[in-house]
Amino acid sequence: MTPPMAIDIQSTVNTQSATFSDRLTVNGVAARRSKAPKLAGGIAAHASSDMFKGPGCGKPSAKRWDHRLNEESKSRKASSLKRAAKYLKNPGIISLGGGLPSSQYFPIEFIDVKVPSAPHFTEQETKELGLVKRIGKYDIEEGKSIYDLHVGLNYGQATGPPQLLRFVTEHTEIVHNPPYHDWQCCMDVGSTSSYDLACRMFLTRGECILTEEYTFSSAAETVRPMGVQCVGVKMDEEGLLPSDLDSILTDWDPSAHSNAPKPWLLYTVPSGQNPTGATQSYKRRKELYRMAQKHDLYILEDEPYFFLQMQPYTGPNAPDVPLPASHEAFIEALVPSLLSMDVDGRVMRLDSFSKVIAPGFRLGWITAAEQIIERFVRHAEVSTQNPSGPSQLILFKLLEETWGHSGYLDWLIHLRLEYTKRRNNICYACEKYLPREIASWTPPMAGMFHWIKIDWQQHPSKESKSMPDIEDEIFHASIDRGALIAKGSWSRAETNNPGSDMFFRTTFAAAPADKVEEAIRRMGDALRAVFHLEDKTTNGTAN
Amino acid sequence: MTPPMAIDIQSTVNTQSATFSDRLTVNGVAARRSKAPKLAGGIAAHASSDMFKGPGCGKPSAKRWDHRLNEESKSRKASSLKRAAKYLKNPGIISLGGGLPSSQYFPIEFIDVKVPSAPHFTEQETKELGLVKRIGKYDIEEGKSIYDLHVGLNYGQATGPPQLLRFVTEHTEIVHNPPYHDWQCCMDVGSTSSYDLACRMFLTRGECILTEEYTFSSAAETVRPMGVQCVGVKMDEEGLLPSDLDSILTDWDPSAHSNAPKPWLLYTVPSGQNPTGATQSYKRRKELYRMAQKHDLYILEDEPYFFLQMQPYTGPNAPDVPLPASHEAFIEALVPSLLSMDVDGRVMRLDSFSKVIAPGFRLGWITAAEQIIERFVRHAEVSTQNPSGPSQLILFKLLEETWGHSGYLDWLIHLRLEYTKRRNNICYACEKYLPREIASWTPPMAGMFHWIKIDWQQHPSKESKSMPDIEDEIFHASIDRGALIAKGSWSRAETNNPGSDMFFRTTFAAAPADKVEEAIRRMGDALRAVFHLEDKTTNGTAN
Repeated sequence: MTPPMAIDIQSTVNTQSATFSDRLTVNGVAARRSKAPKLAGGIAAHASSDMFKGPGCGKPSAKRWDHRLNEESKSRKASSLKRAAKYLKNPGIISLGGGLPSSQYFPIEFIDVKVPSAPHFTEQETKELGLVKRIGKYDIEEGKSIYDLHVGLNYGQATGPPQLLRFVTEHTEIVHNPPYHDWQCCMDVGSTSSYDLACRMFLTRGECILTEEYTFSSAAETVRPMGVQCVGVKMDEEGLLPSDLDSILTDWDPSAHSNAPKPWLLYTVPSGQNPTGATQSYKRRKELYRMAQKHDLYILEDEPYFFLQMQPYTGPNAPDVPLPASHEAFIEALVPSLLSMDVDGRVMRLDSFSKVIAPGFRLGWITAAEQIIERFVRHAEVSTQNPSGPSQLILFKLLEETWGHSGYLDWLIHLRLEYTKRRNNICYACEKYLPREIASWTPPMAGMFHWIKIDWQQHPSKESKSMPDIEDEIFHASIDRGALIAKGSWSRAETNNPGSDMFFRTTFAAAPADKVEEAIRRMGDALRAVFHLEDKTTNGTAN
Repeated sequence: MTPPMAIDIQSTVNTQSATFSDRLTVNGVAARRSKAPKLAGGIAAHASSDMFKGPGCGKPSAKRWDHRLNEESKSRKASSLKRAAKYLKNPGIISLGGGLPSSQYFPIEFIDVKVPSAPHFTEQETKELGLVKRIGKYDIEEGKSIYDLHVGLNYGQATGPPQLLRFVTEHTEIVHNPPYHDWQCCMDVGSTSSYDLACRMFLTRGECILTEEYTFSSAAETVRPMGVQCVGVKMDEEGLLPSDLDSILTDWDPSAHSNAPKPWLLYTVPSGQNPTGATQSYKRRKELYRMAQKHDLYILEDEPYFFLQMQPYTGPNAPDVPLPASHEAFIEALVPSLLSMDVDGRVMRLDSFSKVIAPGFRLGWITAAEQIIERFVRHAEVSTQNPSGPSQLILFKLLEETWGHSGYLDWLIHLRLEYTKRRNNICYACEKYLPREIASWTPPMAGMFHWIKIDWQQHPSKESKSMPDIEDEIFHASIDRGALIAKGSWSRAETNNPGSDMFFRTTFAAAPADKVEEAIRRMGDALRAVFHLEDKTTNGTAN
């Protein structure tokens, strides 16, 4: 188990570097809240990021996206019943309007959760020093909290409850500080769902979407049944190439794409991309954004791994780089998001708690221009409605009432260190066990994935066997030796274009260190067997 | 608060009436489970109702629905990554395949929930006699439970986890016993979402959907942006009229419906319909199903209020009807579902915990033919994924580990009694305060809604004012007096067809009894003021 981090929170939160003078800090949150009106968080309370954001003085307005919304999205109307909710503000009014059940019949008296007390984050420390937090049924009425089961277990708004939307909005401002004034956040039931909703807001059958050449397979599987083709943009170790994006769009030929019009929606995972593990550098992101402006693209920035950006890789025999010494240094150490440079409001950013808290909560949030958020909310109201109440309540207890922004950033720094160790472990194992004659890789800077390139041209039967057949041979040889790895071809954006290179995706997120090492050893054995190579490793037991 | 129910569970569960001899009973569950293989419920474990159902000997197979699935649904492919999950069964295999985070980083040690111990269901009894149930992180490994945070907070399958799918499947078999053999259940993130997914599986822009003449407004708002028109089927106090359904389909004229083809998808709420409160009788449902067979319709049976079927209404001066004396008597007292008569597998039933546990869980389930469930699962995998882990875990603790089927049925009987009292209260208030010259109603047999018809033709300015204007006048007169009610026109299936009658929807689910009475008194005052009527009530204080 990991020892507590070497960060003294008390000594850091009061230090504002010059870079942060114009943006919200952890300390600034308390000051801002002290001047804000009391949070009104009753059943299905209306919420908007505008209630919690800074004034955004001097920032431009987002561009309008009417020309990008599809027929479905443009034709959505607000619900009559929801419009009538404004009368609930009338003093003394009794509502026989909405079909909400009485909390009297919610069969839960309270929920207790035991969570780590920052910065004591390991499972062992949580056992010893963790805090038990109670979520009661009528905590609001009893003055114990601003959020309770009576509210959280009833129907809610598609934006999420103000109690949690406030935290998420402030967090977004602290980390990204979008450079236009009318941005908003909206909670969702996970990025998979938000991506689905976004595609149904923007795309029409017969169109294309731009993605990385290797893309999150689920993202491609979402749009294909909608009659939308993926167009893959070439990549290097820093992710997609803006120059290739430019060529594709400049030279767009509808006849080569079943007469699809020139695409304008880009789906990208800038940090620790799935499957390649590539992280776009700041310079790369600036170029990408400039290209998006040139071609008037709208960007879906999917960032589940943003906070899994790791310490620089120094190799097995060099000392580790010291961890960021303050919250500000931590935020500065992260490659800035596309959202943080989005002067036009042309980015919908998808944030997720799946990789930094737990996937099972099925709760995340999006950030975009007010126009887009409004259309998204209208859509969510008649599909996903709102995230689970127990998920919202537990995350509220953890993030807002236990950790606060300070503790949450400490947690993210803790994860940074943990994932750095895991990444280092798999890289060391690869260096030790994989045949370097045919296997090559770049140590990932973020995420969960290690992407291994195989020089398939060295296969002894390369004249008679196709690349997909050789990929399949390696896949099964690895399974036969007890290691399950993912084929790169599963993630090809264009299914009819296999590319010329071969890759396998491995993940270092789930299995314990010794198992990861053993699986890489088995994969090394498989590769040597398939390619008829001699075992040069000292510990190798190739069969 | 309500006293414990007058039901002796021990003496009833062993009594099987003849009607139940061929279907699963609460007792039968234990017997079946004792013979079943051990439930395998690891991370993202595969689950199917087939693992938990009875053999269904002699029942026919569902018809095929290829001709009803749309282009989007038919073209969905299974995910490559999910297909690879089959290799996880290989003994000793180490997976570097899926991008699942390690539970080591889930910052929750345990969740405790305090819930009522059956049959002591009131809030006061829960305080005194309730049970605190713990959900630990590694309960499975430690032999404390078959479901824990380690599994429930990670990614899951779109079907829901086997731990909860088993309960839901058994419950469906106990209550509905579908008369074909290849039915299955799949959990969802609420019926609003499942309805959205179903519409995207079946409908194509330019088509129509059949609904009740007055329909759940959200259901209409879901399909309209998809380019789908609602066609309203006329209703009486028993809900939609199969004869009108027959006429619409027999005489279908595309030119009267923007050239839409004859519709074949029917959305219906058979029990306590929103907004009319109407409940289809058994005879009505049989006729409806026969008509669906005649025209080869596919039915979306949305049943959030099924278990809010109440005791017969006897009026303020007659004795109450005794509650059902056993679980079997309770189930027999419910009007049978369309699913229970669905020999063809032409029904997708949407079940919800929103009205019987709490809406905030955002968790329900659907039941349909295997072919339809398989397509639904493929769709959910790339949109909603699976219900919230905390929701699943808490409902598992409550339904499976605390109440069991027996306790859950007791809870539903408890709700039956509670809603009967609420329904009686609003009916008594209407009898006392509403002007019978212009207001009429049928006491609802199920649900949350009381639907009040207004004879608008008696309005003093009916020659100069339109029906919508008079409706608006009543709506605002009622708000001015402090009662918010819902306009019937908000629920018209066909927005361009206002119908000839005027209705208001009131709900008796949420507000306490005295508030409901006061709101109805205010509504009565509003009606008298708008219609220039004298106050004939003894307690009236009309202004």
